[in-house]
Amino acid sequence: MDRRTGLPVVGMVGAGQLARMTHQAAISLGQSLRVLAAAEDDSAALVCREVVVGDYTSYPDLAAFAAGCDVLTFDHEHVPAEHLRGLAAAGHALHPSPDALRYAQDKRAMRERLSDLGVPVPHWAPAGAAVDVSAFAEKFGWPVVLKAVRGGYDGRGVWMLPAADEAGPLLAAGLPLLVEELVPARRELAVVVARSPYGQGAAWPVVETVQQDGICVEVLAPAPGLDREVGEQAQRLALTVAGALDVVGVLAVELFETDQGLLVNELAMRPHNSGHWTIEGSRTSQFEQHLRAVLDYPLGLTTMTAPAVAMANVLAAGDPAPPDLDERVHHCAARWPAVKLHLYGKQPRPGRKIGHVTALGEDPDAIRAAARAAARCLAGVQPEEPG
Amino acid sequence: MDRRTGLPVVGMVGAGQLARMTHQAAISLGQSLRVLAAAEDDSAALVCREVVVGDYTSYPDLAAFAAGCDVLTFDHEHVPAEHLRGLAAAGHALHPSPDALRYAQDKRAMRERLSDLGVPVPHWAPAGAAVDVSAFAEKFGWPVVLKAVRGGYDGRGVWMLPAADEAGPLLAAGLPLLVEELVPARRELAVVVARSPYGQGAAWPVVETVQQDGICVEVLAPAPGLDREVGEQAQRLALTVAGALDVVGVLAVELFETDQGLLVNELAMRPHNSGHWTIEGSRTSQFEQHLRAVLDYPLGLTTMTAPAVAMANVLAAGDPAPPDLDERVHHCAARWPAVKLHLYGKQPRPGRKIGHVTALGEDPDAIRAAARAAARCLAGVQPEEPG
Repeated sequence: MDRRTGLPVVGMVGAGQLARMTHQAAISLGQSLRVLAAAEDDSAALVCREVVVGDYTSYPDLAAFAAGCDVLTFDHEHVPAEHLRGLAAAGHALHPSPDALRYAQDKRAMRERLSDLGVPVPHWAPAGAAVDVSAFAEKFGWPVVLKAVRGGYDGRGVWMLPAADEAGPLLAAGLPLLVEELVPARRELAVVVARSPYGQGAAWPVVETVQQDGICVEVLAPAPGLDREVGEQAQRLALTVAGALDVVGVLAVELFETDQGLLVNELAMRPHNSGHWTIEGSRTSQFEQHLRAVLDYPLGLTTMTAPAVAMANVLAAGDPAPPDLDERVHHCAARWPAVKLHLYGKQPRPGRKIGHVTALGEDPDAIRAAARAAARCLAGVQPEEPG
Repeated sequence: MDRRTGLPVVGMVGAGQLARMTHQAAISLGQSLRVLAAAEDDSAALVCREVVVGDYTSYPDLAAFAAGCDVLTFDHEHVPAEHLRGLAAAGHALHPSPDALRYAQDKRAMRERLSDLGVPVPHWAPAGAAVDVSAFAEKFGWPVVLKAVRGGYDGRGVWMLPAADEAGPLLAAGLPLLVEELVPARRELAVVVARSPYGQGAAWPVVETVQQDGICVEVLAPAPGLDREVGEQAQRLALTVAGALDVVGVLAVELFETDQGLLVNELAMRPHNSGHWTIEGSRTSQFEQHLRAVLDYPLGLTTMTAPAVAMANVLAAGDPAPPDLDERVHHCAARWPAVKLHLYGKQPRPGRKIGHVTALGEDPDAIRAAARAAARCLAGVQPEEPG
């Protein structure tokens, strides 16, 4: 309990943009998010009052951080599982719990558990040797997808294999891998839900996530033209998973939409890129909702604030070097006055997510075009040629 | 310029809830607001990364703070005028400028200047002696209102005088005072506008401010039943004042609505309680807009996000002592899921503004009732008896 405010202290392990935006939401709830940062210039460390610099792979660093918090939560899934169990055993409140987080950390455990729950997932198999990959491909065809069981995100830890001989170097590296069918998806969807310790659940509308080189570049809410029943099925599925895995906080479920129905691709137990649109686009943002769940407050309304919302990530340009960010903000704000900016305070290494923008309105195509163009402007990418 | 982010550094003198909510908005713009706080547990000091503890009445403290900032702005109007001039003379960028701030600091200068501009103000006169008050009252009738020329806010520095003999002690205290007619107002209104250094202006809809014991308790946007022409007149008037006084940032104009038209009561050159509803109720909040203006960015849209918005202040209860804040948040969030909470991290001394709540919707009466009830719940005040 923070004696100055009379409210519990929430600590977040990790200080990236998710922690930054969680702090922004925390301020409204009378909170000051405490973050465990890798460095003083981490995105959230630039804006939070309560910054502890430490190593999330070090148990002593985690334990020291936890000692000042009433409840711990996470902006990524990379804390070693044994440390999570150690913190829980030492009496710290972790939301989500180590038992739940396991399924966000370990893709093999996740797929096994989801299959047990009757949740549809792509065909997959463990891949310990080249023969596993070949056998799988004989059954499901080439190309196949090889995935690291742990640690991948934003296209990292995922490899598309057109033929058997390319698996060798990856298998030789000794990482636990699994092999998966290349799903013939019409498109990718995501559904974000939240669950409180009390068991209350809340779901936002299903969104379409537009990927480029394995990275989410745009999110369209609600998913354009989505069959209403499929949307409700996705929400039920995500709430079922949240309940079955005893998730506390936000759960993002990434889905493939195929001719045969929905398949679950990934789970994340934290605010997620596919939910950034909720900051302006919903009565309750995913960041506020995550905090409400973690604090065991009643959840907020997930009603949309506009018929359509489009979010576009700002991926820093490289070559040619763009004008400085301040100048880009000027241009962007002048050209797209209705677009909302979110900048993360991150060094603009080429291709890095340094922010996102959100557009709201009646016409999904118009707001998508505005969000995309504003994001390119902020990124420092040359405007697209007309036509 | 902050080398880590490539953006200018904004410093705000004062670290109350206005600075707290400005920091919250600053995060989206890639900023980390730097604040000059009186104490480590000031509302904004609890949530900002860049906190300098110092005395805003000390020129050395102000100068040291200004040295780390590209532009200075203010969450109150109490910085001594000579220090403002000193900072400007030393080359610091101040928004608003000392010349503009003078009219927010000095009610006499403000009324003289507004009269010169043809802006309607209540009848008033300087009050140096009891005879001034009596002479004024003979012309305009009792009661009269005595006001401190400098330093008043939230009902402080304002006294209602029913008769001549009560002026004595106030006059004897030696404060510069003015005497003013008790305006026969139908109600109080406010209009908040913003102006950039470039001269761009933007106005939000005119709101009704509901006062109790001289303190604003509720704000209704747009002002219910306001004649459209009167609303436009108020917006024009505020934009004219902003331009004439060369205000940069947010300008709040408090107005009396009378049978003879509008009269200007007060000016504030900073985000203002009458604009808190814009956080959820407008595409651009007053806090973001203030920053855009101060940074000379193009201003954002002031479109409302719902037909009606109601804001209610949370004024801490005293006797009987309420249950702890965490419990009150639980109850409030459960009972009014659609109401948005804003808590300031302030110690709940009886009567102190410790937060506000906002409700949005179609039905002005319903949202007003919800906001009022939620604010009372958060304040720890017993529910109103039905009927």
